Amino acid sequence: MPADHLSATFAALADPTRRAILSRLAAGESSVKELAAPFKMTPPAVTKHLKVLQRAGLITRSRRAQWRPCRLDATPLRDVANWAEQYRRFWEERIDRLEDYLHELQSKEKKHERRKP
Amino acid sequence: MPADHLSATFAALADPTRRAILSRLAAGESSVKELAAPFKMTPPAVTKHLKVLQRAGLITRSRRAQWRPCRLDATPLRDVANWAEQYRRFWEERIDRLEDYLHELQSKEKKHERRKP
Repeated sequence: MPADHLSATFAALADPTRRAILSRLAAGESSVKELAAPFKMTPPAVTKHLKVLQRAGLITRSRRAQWRPCRLDATPLRDVANWAEQYRRFWEERIDRLEDYLHELQSKEKKHERRKP
Repeated sequence: MPADHLSATFAALADPTRRAILSRLAAGESSVKELAAPFKMTPPAVTKHLKVLQRAGLITRSRRAQWRPCRLDATPLRDVANWAEQYRRFWEERIDRLEDYLHELQSKEKKHERRKP
């Protein structure tokens, strides 16, 4: 497990099943059995994923019921969003350059069309 | 290497050295040697990290010069930001609940203070 919090969060998110579990929990708290059903996974396999999510602080497991419902905690995702947002101007610049290039190609194409007899 | 693009991006970001390399490249393109210097890492160790970043589409390496400069490509970070943003209302709700709780504690504290002779 990486020592820093952001690395632990990114590592936990680097799996489509774990992201699907978070998406399911966004609809409300759920038991391990309920979470396992759509994935055709055994409860122990789901429990393994839940432990990774729990260590990253992305879910909490209640002790108030014997079925120990899982609950989403999106707080670490705020750090993920803030971290990625630092790079916004870079992806926007890149998209702008691609659009400029596309417009250039389109205007060349039009000129070419006009030259045709 | 995970098959889906978002998993590959998250896995590449789950390392503080790789995130520091991206941060360095945000200031401009750089050689492997220049990237290695602040980390006290050997160029082969840096090259290994660069390969992970390159496979995730986060950097490109130019072939126009023998020193093959590395360049940031922030496009996959837009997907990371968009993915995390889906959960905004969950982290905001959680922060609101914590603030409500804090205000409640503070008002109890004030009442208690007033009762003192």
